[in-house]
Amino acid sequence: MTPSVSPGRMADAIRFLALDAIERAGDGHPGAPLGCAEIATALFTRHLVCNPADPEWPNRDRFVLSNGHGSMLLYALLHLSGYDGISIEAIRNFRELGSPCHGHPEYAPHLGIEATTGPLGQGIANAVGMAVAEARLAAEFGPDLVDHRTYALVGDGCLQEGVAHEVISLAGHLRLGKLVFLWDDNRITDDGGTELSISEDVRARFQAAQWQVIDADGHDVEAVSAALLLARQDPRPTLIACRTVIGRGLPRLEGQRGAHGGRVFAQDLAEARTARDWDHPAFTVPDDVLAAWREGAGARNRAAYESWRAARAALPPETREAFDRRHDARLPEGWQATLHALRDRLAGTAMASIEVSAEAVARLSEAMPELFSGAPDLEGPTKHKQALPAFTAENRGGRYLHYGIREHAMGAMMNGIVAHRGLIPVGATYLVFSDYMRPPLRMAALMELPVVTVYSHDSIGIGRNGPTHQPVEFLASLRAIPNMLVLRPADAVEAVECWEMALTNRHGPTSLICSRQALPALREGGGANRSARGAYVLADAQGGERRATIVATGSEVAVALAARKVLQAEGVPTAVVSMPSWEAFEAQDPEYRASVIPRGPVRVAVEAAIRQGWDRWIGEDGGFVGMTGFGASGPAEELFRHFGITPEAVAQAVRARLSPSAGH
Amino acid sequence: MTPSVSPGRMADAIRFLALDAIERAGDGHPGAPLGCAEIATALFTRHLVCNPADPEWPNRDRFVLSNGHGSMLLYALLHLSGYDGISIEAIRNFRELGSPCHGHPEYAPHLGIEATTGPLGQGIANAVGMAVAEARLAAEFGPDLVDHRTYALVGDGCLQEGVAHEVISLAGHLRLGKLVFLWDDNRITDDGGTELSISEDVRARFQAAQWQVIDADGHDVEAVSAALLLARQDPRPTLIACRTVIGRGLPRLEGQRGAHGGRVFAQDLAEARTARDWDHPAFTVPDDVLAAWREGAGARNRAAYESWRAARAALPPETREAFDRRHDARLPEGWQATLHALRDRLAGTAMASIEVSAEAVARLSEAMPELFSGAPDLEGPTKHKQALPAFTAENRGGRYLHYGIREHAMGAMMNGIVAHRGLIPVGATYLVFSDYMRPPLRMAALMELPVVTVYSHDSIGIGRNGPTHQPVEFLASLRAIPNMLVLRPADAVEAVECWEMALTNRHGPTSLICSRQALPALREGGGANRSARGAYVLADAQGGERRATIVATGSEVAVALAARKVLQAEGVPTAVVSMPSWEAFEAQDPEYRASVIPRGPVRVAVEAAIRQGWDRWIGEDGGFVGMTGFGASGPAEELFRHFGITPEAVAQAVRARLSPSAGH
Repeated sequence: MTPSVSPGRMADAIRFLALDAIERAGDGHPGAPLGCAEIATALFTRHLVCNPADPEWPNRDRFVLSNGHGSMLLYALLHLSGYDGISIEAIRNFRELGSPCHGHPEYAPHLGIEATTGPLGQGIANAVGMAVAEARLAAEFGPDLVDHRTYALVGDGCLQEGVAHEVISLAGHLRLGKLVFLWDDNRITDDGGTELSISEDVRARFQAAQWQVIDADGHDVEAVSAALLLARQDPRPTLIACRTVIGRGLPRLEGQRGAHGGRVFAQDLAEARTARDWDHPAFTVPDDVLAAWREGAGARNRAAYESWRAARAALPPETREAFDRRHDARLPEGWQATLHALRDRLAGTAMASIEVSAEAVARLSEAMPELFSGAPDLEGPTKHKQALPAFTAENRGGRYLHYGIREHAMGAMMNGIVAHRGLIPVGATYLVFSDYMRPPLRMAALMELPVVTVYSHDSIGIGRNGPTHQPVEFLASLRAIPNMLVLRPADAVEAVECWEMALTNRHGPTSLICSRQALPALREGGGANRSARGAYVLADAQGGERRATIVATGSEVAVALAARKVLQAEGVPTAVVSMPSWEAFEAQDPEYRASVIPRGPVRVAVEAAIRQGWDRWIGEDGGFVGMTGFGASGPAEELFRHFGITPEAVAQAVRARLSPSAGH
Repeated sequence: MTPSVSPGRMADAIRFLALDAIERAGDGHPGAPLGCAEIATALFTRHLVCNPADPEWPNRDRFVLSNGHGSMLLYALLHLSGYDGISIEAIRNFRELGSPCHGHPEYAPHLGIEATTGPLGQGIANAVGMAVAEARLAAEFGPDLVDHRTYALVGDGCLQEGVAHEVISLAGHLRLGKLVFLWDDNRITDDGGTELSISEDVRARFQAAQWQVIDADGHDVEAVSAALLLARQDPRPTLIACRTVIGRGLPRLEGQRGAHGGRVFAQDLAEARTARDWDHPAFTVPDDVLAAWREGAGARNRAAYESWRAARAALPPETREAFDRRHDARLPEGWQATLHALRDRLAGTAMASIEVSAEAVARLSEAMPELFSGAPDLEGPTKHKQALPAFTAENRGGRYLHYGIREHAMGAMMNGIVAHRGLIPVGATYLVFSDYMRPPLRMAALMELPVVTVYSHDSIGIGRNGPTHQPVEFLASLRAIPNMLVLRPADAVEAVECWEMALTNRHGPTSLICSRQALPALREGGGANRSARGAYVLADAQGGERRATIVATGSEVAVALAARKVLQAEGVPTAVVSMPSWEAFEAQDPEYRASVIPRGPVRVAVEAAIRQGWDRWIGEDGGFVGMTGFGASGPAEELFRHFGITPEAVAQAVRARLSPSAGH
């Protein structure tokens, strides 16, 4: 610390960078940057362990701004701390196209931004995932390499969202003692006072979930700092309830509802400068204040950084390489061989694709220590735990997390685990429950995080559990998410190939859609990964030029093959295309696509789901055999007949489209 | 009560109906029906006010089986209580296609089934919505007509889901004193003991949220009954924590993990019959037990029912008609005139469609006392509160609910409000937050509930808040939900027309998609509702036969019109089709559809969203101008240029598809 600069002035440096930028943009949220300036100053200049010159230092403390609308707080902090990427110019261009200072923070670890935040509740859930990753990696690599804390700044909005309680409950259960939430308790939401919508004793709620709770005056840097010290001395995760005044320092809006996202004008700035005795020009940080920030947020941690580097350098080469590989998210040698062996072993076996995926995870877990699996209370039906030891408060070396009945938490925590680096999370649940985790799935796609989610129970094929549990619109709704790779394998070989695709997909999430029911074996082992091209001719037309193409995915590929048999017998040369992935097929060159699904022959698709989007592949005149609404409760075979998803229906859809001249 | 039949035998009647049905189906969840048999007996035979002979009696107590996998508990209860629709034959056919005894309960108030449940957490949130509806209607119609309780049976899964905390917190805040959750505290989930995933003090959590908490032995009918009496004497909602043994009465599985959803065999039934001394054949309820049930669950309430009927009969005719109309969910006379007047007043005005919707809600609220609005902490941006008084613990006559930052709760509570009957809920939020409430949106569609959700901030048109808040895949993902009516109006007139469509849609939910930014006026007032046909020719081709059709929705209709101007000037007769609703257009006859979007002319669509599904309307060779990925942070006009959603891009997409012979 530079004693000549008061903490109050250091906090005011945040305030005025934020106010200048928000006024200039004509848009933004002043409430949080102003209300949390002292909290952030306490954390960044006295506690947070980081190195602005090496933003991605693996052992840095993680800080997540969960109330992401307060983005200028983060940009101001990063600039003041010395992160080069957040220059004064970048801050001047806050919310302009091309500036790294986006409206809400966007994941950019090289700039010091640990997660994209804004949709409330996501950031704290990411932070819980990061804390899990830290605990797991510390157990594996030891405290010299991995020993850091995870902090999240959180507003009332984050805490009211349901996902918050899921992760609060789970973090307490897991005793994530290095996790700290700093609650901006300003008693104001966008609608007005929090008394409009909540009467809850938030402190008691956290205590019920086995957290330590500490109160602090959020505008007293010393008090917050003391609370942060206390947080270190308790084995439980800690909530620091910081009583604050929203928009503090902006006379017109301070403590008011309008401070949350209200417009800031030049007159406001003038009043604020007078009120806080801050007579520096816009976007200007006085030298002494900047020096104090650079000292507090940068130099303070030099020894810790150097000591970590020395520890890493002293590692045996193979351990160092293993650690670097994990941090760089490089896959280990031989992972593909593991899958190829599995493929060849399972070729010819009729199996549920969820069981194939479970086998893949089991084998990959042997070859890849970074695999970290879990399921929300569906260990049995997804079979994805098998022999993996559980990650618990007592066993940090575990490889499988019992998420409880908390899909949303799983999705958002997996994002945090990937963003932390070092582990590859795999989550397994039922396809219908993907709706519960849709916000984090979208965030994974936006952040380009390679999260793998495996879904079982993918259609009416589940039978008697009925329409609540039978997905019909989920393939369409997952395919709709930009940058989401959706895979639906047709048999055991394809399922293993899809796992290879999932791990190869390093710049976005993968949804692997599996059946509960057994799928017949359709492919032989060996050879190239045919699924990787998205679609391929599984059975070619025989006895003449192709007159029809039946395109299918997953369990309906067998239906397509049966229909082909009927049509071939009728003298109609018919090809069957298996199409495990629209996105991968879209990425192929047009010639390949045209060779697989040419436009001349009749085109019919079959998928036990709605048609939406299929016209892209079969044209508006193509036939579609699938679902038009929700499913029903009954035995699976009966349901396929009831909804008309049968070889005969497919054959008929083809026949109806053959030109009249075609004899049969 | 019939004193000769013990409560234990009455509970065993539930057990054996459930076991016989589950064994026969070869599938089902025995754990909850067996574990909750005494809880249900206490509630149904001593406390629940209902009339099996008139299942939809408006003033009945509501009972929601939130742990819907235990569906046989509900079917057994309804059969024993005397609901005709759930016959022994229906129970014998549990989980067979066509039986009302579906795998999970499916909304059927005429059978006594108040909500479709299964996806965990939804049922309790429905129940909270029902309790809100009761309180609101009691304030309006008085306690002689509306004065009932709402009960939900809830398992650990429901309580772990995030939506649970949202509604627990809100129910406590609203002091819904007639709401009771009966918690099946069996300490077992599908994965095993609850200690695998939770260490929370659930009782303290509810107390923190301002609930009364009572403990009871869940296998002691007297204890549960006493707790239910205590629940009535407290102004807070009540949690009765019922300690139970899962699968109680099934020796092999009792208290075990496998009891939750494990298979039941003939041998199990034999052992259970011996253990419980129940020597009656399968699907047979002894006469004395059945008589006791019919007395306890039916005759017990005869006086209450008759007294309610007398009160209703004594009402002035207009009050009675108003009450009946509301309960029957009939719209009032003149509601359309209100909208037509608004349409004609706003025609010619450039406005954000969210503001038009806000105006519509304000005017409709005057004409329709049943309108009950709310927004999750977005009163300001959605403008949907206006002069409506808030519904609070103190003011039960309020018309607007501050849901807090709890979208999931809003969605699921609205389902409960509709299922209760008497109110029409309207929820307003941002389109990206629809992902947070996707599970209840799906349930509304499945239950065919006419819930209206209004979404603002519908595209990159929101500008600087960036990609987290810019929907690109949401039109596709909402259109994917079967039975969901999706509306995206292009100007003020269309927005009012869409409101008319939303209220006309009585058998499914409506998503009304609105812009934050002002939309230019495109239509005149008066005349028929053109939006109602889904799509229509807004500007016809001039100067010759139509050579191009540009189809657009919402804010992009203006872009299409500008492109048309360019093309017309180039001598290309071009029509613009406004398409506020795919679903409504799909429902038109083929001739109309072909007249609006004929296949001959070039077809180009423009929508600031992804293409998925558009090929259905423009063919695979049609042009599409829209988004291919996520948005960005910057001024809105710049973003439209940046992503190429401009009149020039649309015109170019048309030109590129005109046949070479076409001169221009």
